[in-house]
Amino acid sequence: MKKRVAVIGAGPSGTAVLRAFQSAKKKGADIPEIVCFEKQDDWGGLWNYTWRTGLDKHGEPVHGSMYRYLWTNAPKECLEFVDYPFEEHFGQPIASYPPRTVLLDYFKGRLDKAGVRGWVRFQTAVQRVQYDEASGKFSVTYLHCQTDEASTEEFDYVIVASGHFSVPNVPEFSGFETFNGRILHSHDFRDAVEFKGKDVLIVGRSYSAEDIGSQCYKYGAKSIISSYRSRPMGYKWPANWEEKPLLQRVDKNIAYFADGTSRQIDAIILCTGYKYHFPFLPDTLRLRTDNRLWPLKLFQGVVWEDNPKLHYIGMQNQFYSFNMFDVQAWYSRDVILGRQTLPSLEQMRQHSAERRAREEKIESVEQGVAFQGDRVKELIALTDYPPFDIEAVNKTFLEWDQHKAEDFIGFRNRSYRSVMTGKMSPVHHTPWLDAMDDSLESYLGRPSGKA
Amino acid sequence: MKKRVAVIGAGPSGTAVLRAFQSAKKKGADIPEIVCFEKQDDWGGLWNYTWRTGLDKHGEPVHGSMYRYLWTNAPKECLEFVDYPFEEHFGQPIASYPPRTVLLDYFKGRLDKAGVRGWVRFQTAVQRVQYDEASGKFSVTYLHCQTDEASTEEFDYVIVASGHFSVPNVPEFSGFETFNGRILHSHDFRDAVEFKGKDVLIVGRSYSAEDIGSQCYKYGAKSIISSYRSRPMGYKWPANWEEKPLLQRVDKNIAYFADGTSRQIDAIILCTGYKYHFPFLPDTLRLRTDNRLWPLKLFQGVVWEDNPKLHYIGMQNQFYSFNMFDVQAWYSRDVILGRQTLPSLEQMRQHSAERRAREEKIESVEQGVAFQGDRVKELIALTDYPPFDIEAVNKTFLEWDQHKAEDFIGFRNRSYRSVMTGKMSPVHHTPWLDAMDDSLESYLGRPSGKA
Repeated sequence: MKKRVAVIGAGPSGTAVLRAFQSAKKKGADIPEIVCFEKQDDWGGLWNYTWRTGLDKHGEPVHGSMYRYLWTNAPKECLEFVDYPFEEHFGQPIASYPPRTVLLDYFKGRLDKAGVRGWVRFQTAVQRVQYDEASGKFSVTYLHCQTDEASTEEFDYVIVASGHFSVPNVPEFSGFETFNGRILHSHDFRDAVEFKGKDVLIVGRSYSAEDIGSQCYKYGAKSIISSYRSRPMGYKWPANWEEKPLLQRVDKNIAYFADGTSRQIDAIILCTGYKYHFPFLPDTLRLRTDNRLWPLKLFQGVVWEDNPKLHYIGMQNQFYSFNMFDVQAWYSRDVILGRQTLPSLEQMRQHSAERRAREEKIESVEQGVAFQGDRVKELIALTDYPPFDIEAVNKTFLEWDQHKAEDFIGFRNRSYRSVMTGKMSPVHHTPWLDAMDDSLESYLGRPSGKA
Repeated sequence: MKKRVAVIGAGPSGTAVLRAFQSAKKKGADIPEIVCFEKQDDWGGLWNYTWRTGLDKHGEPVHGSMYRYLWTNAPKECLEFVDYPFEEHFGQPIASYPPRTVLLDYFKGRLDKAGVRGWVRFQTAVQRVQYDEASGKFSVTYLHCQTDEASTEEFDYVIVASGHFSVPNVPEFSGFETFNGRILHSHDFRDAVEFKGKDVLIVGRSYSAEDIGSQCYKYGAKSIISSYRSRPMGYKWPANWEEKPLLQRVDKNIAYFADGTSRQIDAIILCTGYKYHFPFLPDTLRLRTDNRLWPLKLFQGVVWEDNPKLHYIGMQNQFYSFNMFDVQAWYSRDVILGRQTLPSLEQMRQHSAERRAREEKIESVEQGVAFQGDRVKELIALTDYPPFDIEAVNKTFLEWDQHKAEDFIGFRNRSYRSVMTGKMSPVHHTPWLDAMDDSLESYLGRPSGKA
């Protein structure tokens, strides 16, 4: 009997697993049967856009946190696939901060080339995974979303690749019950034009707060206040954007902050992060962590120590993304193919604890990037994943960080050198702030002038 | 061993079951152990308000579809409990269309009097119910929302009382992906003030469309268009509210309708109804229906014909509500206590089919009310539920319907006679359109003048 592998999710993490097995198969390996369960209509995970919020057309929680007009918030050179450079896909070099549609097109191009679509069962939502000690197998129960009927199948391995930016962490502040306006989490943010002419309060200071604030600024919000708990972002803000310490309460349409100041606001956007939420997994198999570079219980960041037939992909906080998911997938595949020998549980735990100790000493973006780059290097060394210049990618991350500090609104006008092709990317034809058309055609085409 | 009964949901339907068993116990009956699972922090079901939309603080879908400023959309005299008149609770007669807070206070008062709170496990979400043919028992797996840990327990009976106005039915129209504004389902509508000064498009023609449109009107929307599929509501509209046939598409901020007209709009509210959605039930136990007065497969509207140890409460479309849930709960209880003898499966099916045939002949509100009133009568006759004058309640429904037709914006200023006390309810101190303070204190207190 052929072994069976269930992959949960067909986003960048889940499809990396498909690509890993396809690569082995192409080189002649005998691979297991791969079944990838995907709730959405198409692959791409968070890179798909939907206007829907809350529950989807089938009554399942909407997976996507994607909004209109999003451009990548870090250089594409940092997530470029070594085996599929952007230039190969687009037939021309392109600028460094592509909009969503452009990045998704690239992502899909690589998968189409691999020819693995047949492994994905779209519109299926995994409802529960159970492990049977006696048989050593998992039973996976999933819903056929279109017919609302459930099926159960057995698998030898389960790979959780359902992401951790889908289930909002939504704090409550005093007065929310009687605030006279919209309160939403970044997960439900869709179109910045809704906030044109409005005084917008953003709660949070991480990537969502940065980018959704920028969107509101670009699309004409009257003013933006971003409110931080721990420390300010500290960028050079435009005139109508200011940072304030943590929101204390709202009363009708007035927001009160920890520094004693108050401001009239029309809407509140909670950029307060996401939960790791795997309701389909039993307690014994469920990863419980906050968003950090080294969650515990995952050997090499991938293998569930307490049951090494369960793997997780992409569960770390991310500087590295697409290419890190790839190397994790290659490692996961090699564990399943028996090409990796796992140490004892005790040794795995020691290994993870040592990584955690290193992670806890990280004090800067530079150290964080280097730490994650080292993990990528380590997995490349263990597998046949094509090596690439991690130090050069680390350096690009640092340039990006510097460019954001220099010009928070304009950093997307910069360009970087591809580590894969060695070529410098072109400067985009229109500054980000003036580029209102985020279509693929516009991004790749001629200047269309200011909107 | 004492039998065990699981009740799923502590809203008006689930708590009716608690009340039914408490009533039997008080009269000396030996009752089973009752465990009521409730996802929310408190009982009251849809009558609880939360500012949250989408997923709740635990990552579970928000149950509530409640919005601020809601007043009942039918006379309180139609849902009054025969054993607990409004006047008993408030110590004074009150007007006929109370705001949410007032109705919820009444609802809770009756339950507090019954003393059944200890039967409810709050912040538990039922994840799945399975029936084991061999043991004849159900296993119910539920999540402790606060700790994110699951438990499984066995029960002899399961009563599904989780409602059917929680999971939105959300159609897509062409152009939604690129509409420049908020698109929401009525499930996510919270505060009409958000739409002040806006041109609002409402899709739908049933109760949600009526009431959310009225809210937008009352709280200062610039204009309202409501769009119907089958037929117009046909009320006498205020100057800035008009009805149009079905939305065909939107293009940026222009909505196009089936009559060839178009209008600029700022927001779209989909009042397009709800799904019957029981993802925790296996296919064989799952009610599948649209919102109608007589769903099939439920004997007497309650007992799952294919497995009479599974009951459903409140799954019909509703003229009658609180008091109908009560009589259904009394019947369910009596089946469990062995006081009712169920006929054969074939006979149950025939009985249900006969009801369905009658339901299909209904052509008017009058006939619909009478049909549902007959079902309530029928269950009262089978149980020890205290009888009340159904014909008089039916008549109140017809008056309400007439009052809406006469004055759609002003019908809540009317008052009705309590069937339970025989007393005429007072006229409220402030017309609905001018009563901006919907607190319990304001409703019960002195006139506060126009806002």
